[in-house]
Amino acid sequence: MSTTQTGDTGIADVDATGPAGGMGPPKTARGQKTREALLRAAEKVFGEKGYYAASISEITQEAKVAMGTFYLYFKDKEDIFRALVGHMLELVRAHLRKHVAAAETQMEAERLGLKAFLSFVSRHKNLYRIVLDSYSVDETIYSSYFQVFAELYSRRLTRAEEQGEIVPGDAEVRAWCLIGISNFLGMRYARWKRPPSMEKVVDTAFDLIAHGLQPRQTR
Amino acid sequence: MSTTQTGDTGIADVDATGPAGGMGPPKTARGQKTREALLRAAEKVFGEKGYYAASISEITQEAKVAMGTFYLYFKDKEDIFRALVGHMLELVRAHLRKHVAAAETQMEAERLGLKAFLSFVSRHKNLYRIVLDSYSVDETIYSSYFQVFAELYSRRLTRAEEQGEIVPGDAEVRAWCLIGISNFLGMRYARWKRPPSMEKVVDTAFDLIAHGLQPRQTR
Repeated sequence: MSTTQTGDTGIADVDATGPAGGMGPPKTARGQKTREALLRAAEKVFGEKGYYAASISEITQEAKVAMGTFYLYFKDKEDIFRALVGHMLELVRAHLRKHVAAAETQMEAERLGLKAFLSFVSRHKNLYRIVLDSYSVDETIYSSYFQVFAELYSRRLTRAEEQGEIVPGDAEVRAWCLIGISNFLGMRYARWKRPPSMEKVVDTAFDLIAHGLQPRQTR
Repeated sequence: MSTTQTGDTGIADVDATGPAGGMGPPKTARGQKTREALLRAAEKVFGEKGYYAASISEITQEAKVAMGTFYLYFKDKEDIFRALVGHMLELVRAHLRKHVAAAETQMEAERLGLKAFLSFVSRHKNLYRIVLDSYSVDETIYSSYFQVFAELYSRRLTRAEEQGEIVPGDAEVRAWCLIGISNFLGMRYARWKRPPSMEKVVDTAFDLIAHGLQPRQTR
């Protein structure tokens, strides 16, 4: 557990590769498979028990891998946890890319992306526990997770503004607003308590993102 | 540390009084003062060291209170931590109430509220560490903290819609969107890395909340 105060520096250290962790990709296909099995097991064990209560032996049992094998891939519990946060980030990104690919404009991408994120979280409920626990393990794991999303999002918003698909405005600030919306909706409606209709949640949030709350006549 | 999965139930158990903790308000003014000194010390110690590294003795030293006195007010470390999350919630609410009081419309309240929240977080940087650590201590502390804000916010949005100050739409979904925006902007711009101008951050976010991203001609 780090006791470093992040203060004004934490986020500046972050690059776009995401939270560090693990010893890099294994060289063989079999090694790759074992590493993935360990990460899948880690998602389940950390997600269900939380970082502090989880143990390496539970992860190796879940993955059906010998304890000695674990240490070929990861240094310790914190190391596989860091790798897991990076792995979850890649899963979210891949899922979003796939579902947003069909969008022809940024506004369409906003709607599809929000819907896709909520469907991802509904199927990976442990995402929140993993990402939020990472804050207390080391704030920079948590900050770099969101920083990666914010950088990618900012670039997309900048391009969309250049193409006249959205009104002009600071892309970075907007990226953090939009990430905040997705994140809190996912926590509330996909993790904590399912709504009667997820489609209506998406519609309401999208309407806010597209048109805002102010009555049209007073604009 | 709780290992309970929140699943679909966590949020339903939450009432609007906030995260539980502490043995209720002391009966004397002196008792009240001692309890407040302990909570102020807890804000500093938990905020700087994190929940897991912090100890009761550091809190009593910081508060200049005898160890025995601590136990007149709180059962243990988790108990004062729960009380602290509730205390922070009340500090945020009081700060927002004060700064939003002058608003004549909901849209004005949105701008003033966002600005006030960012100024609060700039002065209470430890808020994030305390609230986010609460997730790994017990997810219901964290969920009830946000649930209280969401309920209050929903009520205000419902009233504003009735008075024609905002366009019609699901108040609860919007409340979670708006809380997500404030929360992520505060984390990014007040805790992690200060922007050249906080006023511009508020302007950009407010413009998104008021008018959305979609170009006016295509509405």
